[in-house]
Amino acid sequence: MPFLDYPESFRELTRQLRRLPSIGPRSAERIALWMLRSPHAHPRDLAKAIRNASEQLKSCECCSFFTEQEICALCADENRAGKEFCVVERATDILPLERTGVFHGRYHALGGKLSPLDGIGPEQLRIEELLDRLTLERPSEIILALSGDVEGEATAHYLAEVIAPFNIKITRLAQGLSAGGGIEQADAVTLQRALANRGAYFI
Amino acid sequence: MPFLDYPESFRELTRQLRRLPSIGPRSAERIALWMLRSPHAHPRDLAKAIRNASEQLKSCECCSFFTEQEICALCADENRAGKEFCVVERATDILPLERTGVFHGRYHALGGKLSPLDGIGPEQLRIEELLDRLTLERPSEIILALSGDVEGEATAHYLAEVIAPFNIKITRLAQGLSAGGGIEQADAVTLQRALANRGAYFI
Repeated sequence: MPFLDYPESFRELTRQLRRLPSIGPRSAERIALWMLRSPHAHPRDLAKAIRNASEQLKSCECCSFFTEQEICALCADENRAGKEFCVVERATDILPLERTGVFHGRYHALGGKLSPLDGIGPEQLRIEELLDRLTLERPSEIILALSGDVEGEATAHYLAEVIAPFNIKITRLAQGLSAGGGIEQADAVTLQRALANRGAYFI
Repeated sequence: MPFLDYPESFRELTRQLRRLPSIGPRSAERIALWMLRSPHAHPRDLAKAIRNASEQLKSCECCSFFTEQEICALCADENRAGKEFCVVERATDILPLERTGVFHGRYHALGGKLSPLDGIGPEQLRIEELLDRLTLERPSEIILALSGDVEGEATAHYLAEVIAPFNIKITRLAQGLSAGGGIEQADAVTLQRALANRGAYFI
């Protein structure tokens, strides 16, 4: 007696949904059923959105933020030229900072932080690109918005050393970040305070 | 100063993800970022799975279960002919029962349960279709696998009355279901017991 199961196209859908972060087997089935049964679900719109995003989104050649052009809206905005520079670890750190509403300069995502044990040295990060931008864009200040953990501190220390010859004021976010926590997890108020209380960086 | 946000294709993706059940704004953003950044994400495979499922899946003309043909694999299986009939509220109730492994007959999904306050009377349910199938398929027994709540009881009562003229044994699931709970929420062991302890239905 064959054991009944959902048709193949349904099982393929739940398999794909289960691969998403924090979606378990039961959630995947519930979402799949909702997609196919609810009159409010528009599964083709979702399929199209996924396809469009994966085809159109790339990294800004300048700061690494998400963009559909070569250069993101922020780097293309001349009002932000010559102001502060906010150096972050990842492109996903940019929007949480931007949403505080108190920073009006440009960003630079390094693509990670120094972590010798994981084989991530200065060459693996976008530090050369940062130095090129400093020469070209001459920001008024460099804010190191890196994690409060050991690797973040080491990265800040390293950056402060290589940026020093540029004679640009270097600051870092106030230690309002929770110990060991990254940018992405912090709420807007904490980030606002961390921006407001940033202090001079001494090596 | 324009406020920076994700590009439109990214925002459309998170908007679509947020429409899914139990996905909040932060989950939607986390999933979207994962889709676009993780080397393990294959967003086009998901988009394709959604599109295929929504194009290919339909309801079995006979029992309402999901199928890619006119008739589902179960209704097409001659080994299940002439055995027990399991009447459920929704097509999504079928697989939880099937997974108990102790039922080998056919199913019939009504498409809901009697609920006069919501305007759902016998005409809104697939009861005519059920009676047609009884005439044609002559099952050995009809198991009413309906919810343990008031509407489920009322539906069982109504069905027992209209099925009575067919002189087919009518049973219902043992009251192992939690009060007020539906089929979908019950675990396999509870459903197994409820199937094993089903008793004759008296009106």
